Amino acid sequence: MPRYALKVEYNGAPFAGWQRQADQPSVQGAIEEALSKLQPGSHAIAAAGRTDAGVHGLGQVAQCDLTKAWDPFRLSEALNHHLKPNPVAIVDCAQADEDWHARFSAVERRYLFRLLMRRAPVTHDAGLVWQVAYDLDVDAMRQGAAHLIGNHDFTTFRSSICQAKSPVKTLDEIKIDRIDGLSGPEIHFHLRARSFLHNQVRSIVGTLERVGRGSWSPEDVKSALEAHDRAACGPVCPPHGLYLVGVTYPDDPFAD
Amino acid sequence: MPRYALKVEYNGAPFAGWQRQADQPSVQGAIEEALSKLQPGSHAIAAAGRTDAGVHGLGQVAQCDLTKAWDPFRLSEALNHHLKPNPVAIVDCAQADEDWHARFSAVERRYLFRLLMRRAPVTHDAGLVWQVAYDLDVDAMRQGAAHLIGNHDFTTFRSSICQAKSPVKTLDEIKIDRIDGLSGPEIHFHLRARSFLHNQVRSIVGTLERVGRGSWSPEDVKSALEAHDRAACGPVCPPHGLYLVGVTYPDDPFAD
Repeated sequence: MPRYALKVEYNGAPFAGWQRQADQPSVQGAIEEALSKLQPGSHAIAAAGRTDAGVHGLGQVAQCDLTKAWDPFRLSEALNHHLKPNPVAIVDCAQADEDWHARFSAVERRYLFRLLMRRAPVTHDAGLVWQVAYDLDVDAMRQGAAHLIGNHDFTTFRSSICQAKSPVKTLDEIKIDRIDGLSGPEIHFHLRARSFLHNQVRSIVGTLERVGRGSWSPEDVKSALEAHDRAACGPVCPPHGLYLVGVTYPDDPFAD
Repeated sequence: MPRYALKVEYNGAPFAGWQRQADQPSVQGAIEEALSKLQPGSHAIAAAGRTDAGVHGLGQVAQCDLTKAWDPFRLSEALNHHLKPNPVAIVDCAQADEDWHARFSAVERRYLFRLLMRRAPVTHDAGLVWQVAYDLDVDAMRQGAAHLIGNHDFTTFRSSICQAKSPVKTLDEIKIDRIDGLSGPEIHFHLRARSFLHNQVRSIVGTLERVGRGSWSPEDVKSALEAHDRAACGPVCPPHGLYLVGVTYPDDPFAD
């Protein structure tokens, strides 16, 4: 059975998350339903990141196994046809080795969080950014973020329902940029790690927002991390500013 | 009666255009209805650009006259409250002189047209860009656009229902940039003029797209312009990539 790697983009708004659910729309469910139009029967696909309800995908990576061999471009075109009108698109497709796995072969995940700073209600980017009504101090947030880089026990920044065996993770990068967007000034948080705990990005960004606003000092982030206590975390920010941007594999299935 | 200048942002998707209509939603109608919540009775506002159905506003400028004096910030907050859930926001508000007019005092309008180049269906920017499935030659489009700068008879690039007295206009600038957007590579067309004819921007961008694609040469744009014939125009491109970005006044009501 040939295995295919799918690079998937989606607007998370109408979905209860990536993972298939019995009675709610999911991104996985939408893709599996499209696959069943191409090959009747049930399908069980896997993905690099099981994003939460409302979280978006720009470069999510999934895998599917099909009985018949497909030309990858034709497969993506057929899936995109059957995915309509869901806001889900296959933006790249490649045949992968049988021992390649979208989730277990991944060695890096990259997330972007978009925060828009303005007072007036947002019109064009509704559901695509987290909006705050005040300006944030980027330098202070960068100082706070620096305490989180490296190998740490991230218990403070982990959902209480997180199923990971260990709270110890290595955070490779938090890059914080100020961008002039069409709707106003945005802060873009770029995070990079081998893997993330449940709600880790949203817990970190929610905490850094407190620093940017001045109600926390950058050093408070260090104290929160070292507390190893969920109660020490800042507020978890909403999902709709979060994007799974990309996934890295030692042997990139999409290379040429 | 104090006069107020409103800087208005809107997503054009749900509207039949700026102008109030008897039985269809319009941006003007939405703002006038919000005004009637603040001051009972009918209102008749005016705007710098009467954008078509589906066209967006980023910096549209409108005026309203109210019997009572308002603090401009409180007025914008009250209007934004009553505008919900319409995708319309007052992003700035200022008291203006009585002889200032949103439309007749304007000396420059600026438009942006966003074109997204990718094959897969668009998910996050649906309704906010014009999507084409192929790559466009920016240099060729710039060469074609150069023929349109200056004072010309724009009959070729004017809707047959345009009500302007003269087809002669001065186009001050067409800047064409290639941008890396979150959804893929975009072409941004920035156009600037004292005023535009009906459908002029969409007629110009639709024609330049032909040049970028290679089916027209840059010199064909010159021939089309000099034909002074609507039939010589390229296809008019769809409205949902178009944004009224800003309006210039000799005495900017929003200054400080």
